[in-house]
Parts: sequence; structure tokens; C-alpha cells
Amino acid sequence: MSVAGRFERIALIGFGLIGGSIARAARQQGVAGEIVTTARSEKTRARVAELGIVDHVVASNADAVKDADLVILCIPVGACGPVAAEIAPHLKPGAVVSDVGSVKGAIVRDMAPHLPANVHFVPAHPVAGTENSGPDSGFAELFINRWCILTPPDGVDAGAIDHLRAFWAALGAKVEIMTPDHHDRVLAITSHLPHLIAYTIVGTADELAQVTESEVIKFSAGGFRDFTRIAASDPTMWRDIFLSNKDAVLDMLGTFTEDLSKLTRAIRRGDGDALFDHFTRTRAIRRGIVDIGQDSAAPDFGRPLPQLKKP
Amino acid sequence: MSVAGRFERIALIGFGLIGGSIARAARQQGVAGEIVTTARSEKTRARVAELGIVDHVVASNADAVKDADLVILCIPVGACGPVAAEIAPHLKPGAVVSDVGSVKGAIVRDMAPHLPANVHFVPAHPVAGTENSGPDSGFAELFINRWCILTPPDGVDAGAIDHLRAFWAALGAKVEIMTPDHHDRVLAITSHLPHLIAYTIVGTADELAQVTESEVIKFSAGGFRDFTRIAASDPTMWRDIFLSNKDAVLDMLGTFTEDLSKLTRAIRRGDGDALFDHFTRTRAIRRGIVDIGQDSAAPDFGRPLPQLKKP
Repeated sequence: MSVAGRFERIALIGFGLIGGSIARAARQQGVAGEIVTTARSEKTRARVAELGIVDHVVASNADAVKDADLVILCIPVGACGPVAAEIAPHLKPGAVVSDVGSVKGAIVRDMAPHLPANVHFVPAHPVAGTENSGPDSGFAELFINRWCILTPPDGVDAGAIDHLRAFWAALGAKVEIMTPDHHDRVLAITSHLPHLIAYTIVGTADELAQVTESEVIKFSAGGFRDFTRIAASDPTMWRDIFLSNKDAVLDMLGTFTEDLSKLTRAIRRGDGDALFDHFTRTRAIRRGIVDIGQDSAAPDFGRPLPQLKKP
Repeated sequence: MSVAGRFERIALIGFGLIGGSIARAARQQGVAGEIVTTARSEKTRARVAELGIVDHVVASNADAVKDADLVILCIPVGACGPVAAEIAPHLKPGAVVSDVGSVKGAIVRDMAPHLPANVHFVPAHPVAGTENSGPDSGFAELFINRWCILTPPDGVDAGAIDHLRAFWAALGAKVEIMTPDHHDRVLAITSHLPHLIAYTIVGTADELAQVTESEVIKFSAGGFRDFTRIAASDPTMWRDIFLSNKDAVLDMLGTFTEDLSKLTRAIRRGDGDALFDHFTRTRAIRRGIVDIGQDSAAPDFGRPLPQLKKP
């Protein structure tokens, strides 16, 4: 009767987009016995209780983790160290302790020193999300066909890793294991730099005096609107990501800036061949992403099409 | 019985995403009598004939424009000057001559000198598109609720402008009139710079030795995939856009680079407050775009959700 990846009692520290999606998916897939969650604000706790997805919602992280077989920190990266210190004395021996942070080196550095030797620390990063946040933003399908990267420190119990792997697989994710350092470099280019660039260009548009904000918004379908989605992501979460993956982000940014200079020079010199060659190469990457099901093949991301009335 | 915006004979020079969408929409909305189109390659002409949307598909632009009441050049910006010279002797007196180019200053400069005084030249830019190209990529709904910007030179017949405005309105577009120069500045920030940045970052990812291409593709759901869509746009079209709107693009690029330096400095110095403030401001722009219906309010652009089987 036991489903692969099931934990009898799960504590989710935080119930935002990721915590809320884990709760919904785990419930739906039958891999959670009891689920207890915490939220810092009274308002969020009231909303979570109202949603009725979890069994208990409490204010105290220490209370939440008592007797939990799986504890997942679903909070901004910068908050994980202090919370690890707070929950450490209350963890059940043998519990799996994990997180969902977009940076892994800093998580290991900040959390590991606080955790007792009798728990299994398996940091995780589900590479999935939307631009929304808060207790209502989660949904059970978020992790389907997305990768979840585990970065267990050396010597972590193989059974604990397998158990967490099966849990994420039950939620629909494909699981991969890598070192925290490699994770942070991969994500710097596939996620952190894109967010930084999007935040920058949306800010640039906001500042321009010669183009009113209303024009930027009106004519955004020419390309700009694609950047505004990720530039609407949670500010606290992203502040913490850039502060804790500083080196890899600055390194990728250096390469990006050099490449931008090359294209700028080609435009300034009117070098059409260089532009054409570059623009041809980049098409192949899109094709690769669509081919392995990491994006929709429908034009325009499959945005819904309006209909015209017949004249 | 005459529908507002109807033209009895329309010549579309080129049948790609935009030409093909105009043909489909004009047909569906009853604003086209006969439609004749041209395509440079034999293969495309055969495919257009097979699609059965237009009445005639011919190889010669000169033949196509004979007796046409509306001629629209639906080809890359760089090709518009030579084609204007080619069709000029064959235009019907009183015809409306237009285009769909993403740059307007260069279009006026390159086309106007060739056109006879007895036609009405009304350059146009429908701010709509997808990453796809070719005769099969068009669809009738492309222009619905999108802006079409007209940039008629001084002294153009008001009746001709109104007729073309009504035509685009029938296709579902909202029409706005501005100067070519203002158009080129607005589009530099809302469309051209976003494409340049997207082409750059996708190229940067392609080059990185420490992250294999397969990892970039696998973990693209963390943000990167949003950039790959517009970096898969037609290379010839975009080469021409950057070459013909050089000054405005370089100017916007200067501002963008300054802003990127500011955020880079905030990361390097660990200035979390500066990052948080910036990331909070950019959320409002997304809200504005969704509020006026220029993007879907659904998370993740409304990308289709997969479903999990019950365990």
C-alpha cells in the first residue's frame, strides 16, 4: 500500500509558489501522509487554512518539524541559514532535511553547520516556477516534466537520497544529481543571468523620457513583453539569489557583456553578415528546448488567441 | 454591401508570417476582393498555391501590382527600396502603397523617392508576430488587439490614410499614427533592443564550455527559455532591422548598458536594498501590459499544463 517516495509526515517551511505546489502535488499523488506548513504572517496562515490543502498550519517552525520525516524549506535562500539553526534542535532523528533554493553552494554553507548528524541533509532545486508568488499561486502540475536537481554533500545516506528522489519523481519531476558548485554555474546561465537581464531592460524602458511608459506598454507585443514576465518575479527571492550566487553570476555577466559588445560593433559597422550568422545559430537552441519538451512548440508560447467577430 | 476598409484588388509582395496572416485575415473579414501575392522561390509559390488562400500567386512583382488598389510589401526592410523601384512604373494611379516593416525612417527614405506622385504612400507597421516564418506560419488572428502604426509622410491624402486605417481595423488591429522618427525610437526599446539582448544571451549560453549545451537546454525552464523564442526569429528580417535602425538601437543600448552596470555593481557590493528596489519597480510594468490586454494574465504566458497520471 505504500507509494514510492511517500513520507508519513511532511513539514513545509513556507507556503509560497513552491511550497504550495509541493503540498498540492504531494496530496494529489498520495506521497504525503500528514502535511504541516508554516507561514510567517498571520494573514498567509489564515489563507492557507482556508485553502484546506494541508493538515496543519502553524506559526512556529520548531513546532512544525517535530516528528516530520521530511522537512523542506520553501523560503528565500537568505533565510535558510537562520531557519536551519532554529529547527535543528527539534528535528526527528532520521528525518530528511531539504530545501528548494535556486542557489546550492550558499545553502550548503549556511545550513549544514547547524544540522545534527542524525538527520539526512539533501539540498534540492526544482527548476520550475512562474512569475507569481503567495499561497494561491501554487498548482499541482508545476513540476511535471521539469528537472529537480539534488546536491547531497559527500557521505549522505544513499537511502535518504533515493527516498527524496522518488518523492520528486512522484510529483512529476526528473531528478538529477550534481555538485553544488556545478549547479550554481549551470543555473547562473540558464536562470540567474536571464532574470538579471530581464530586470535590467524592463527598468531601462521604465526610465526613458522620450518614450512614455504608456507607449512601452502599448507596443510591448513586439518583443518586450516576453521580458516582463520574469521581471515580475518575487523581489526578495531574487535579491537573495544574486547575493548568494555572486561569483558565478558576475562571471557569466562578463561573458554576456563581451558578446553584447561584439554584436554592438557589428551594428555600428553595418556588418550584416556577422549579424545574420549569429541570428542563425541561436535558432537551433530553441529547437532543442522544444524537442525535449521544455517549452511549448506552439508559436508565441501558446498564448491564447482572441477571435474576431465576423463582419 | 461594401465593408469598411475593403479593397477590390490587393497585391501582397511576399507571403511569410505577416503577408500570409494579412491574406488569411482579409479573406476572413471580407475586406479583400481579389488577392494576388508574389514569392521569390518556386517552392514557396507552389506551397502558397496549394494553401488556396489567395487568388493568384505570381513570380513577378511588376505583374502583381497591376490594377491593385492596395499594394503591401511584406518583405524584409532591406528589400523594400529595390522592390519600390521595380514596381513603381506598374502601379495603378490612386493605389495605396504600404509595407509592414519594423523600421519606418529607412522605409520612407528608401521607398518614397521611387514612387510616382499619383499613388498614396502610407507606411505601416503591425506590431505583432511570432517566432515562426514561411508561408505556413501565418494565421488570421495575428493582428487582433495589436497596434498597427501608420507613418504617412506630410501631405498624403487623408482619404487614403483612412481607407488603410479601416483595413487594419477590420483585421482586428488598433491603429495609431506617428512620425517615422518617433516610431523608430519607440520600437527600438519595445522590440529591437529586446531582440538584440535575447540573441546575445542565447549566443552566450551556446558558447559556454563549462556548461554543456545539453544542460542549457535541460534546465532552461528556470528563465532562459523565455529568451529563446524571440532569438528564433527570422535572421534576414532582423539583420535588416538592426542595420536600418542603427542610431536608435545604439542609443537604447547605451542606456541599457549603463543600467546593467548599476545592477552589476549592486551585486558585486552585496547591496541587497538596491536590488530589491529595482526588482519591485519592474513588477508594475508587467501589470500594466496585462491590464491593457497586451499579454495573457495566465502564469507562464499560459503555456499548456501537462497532467500527471494518478498513482
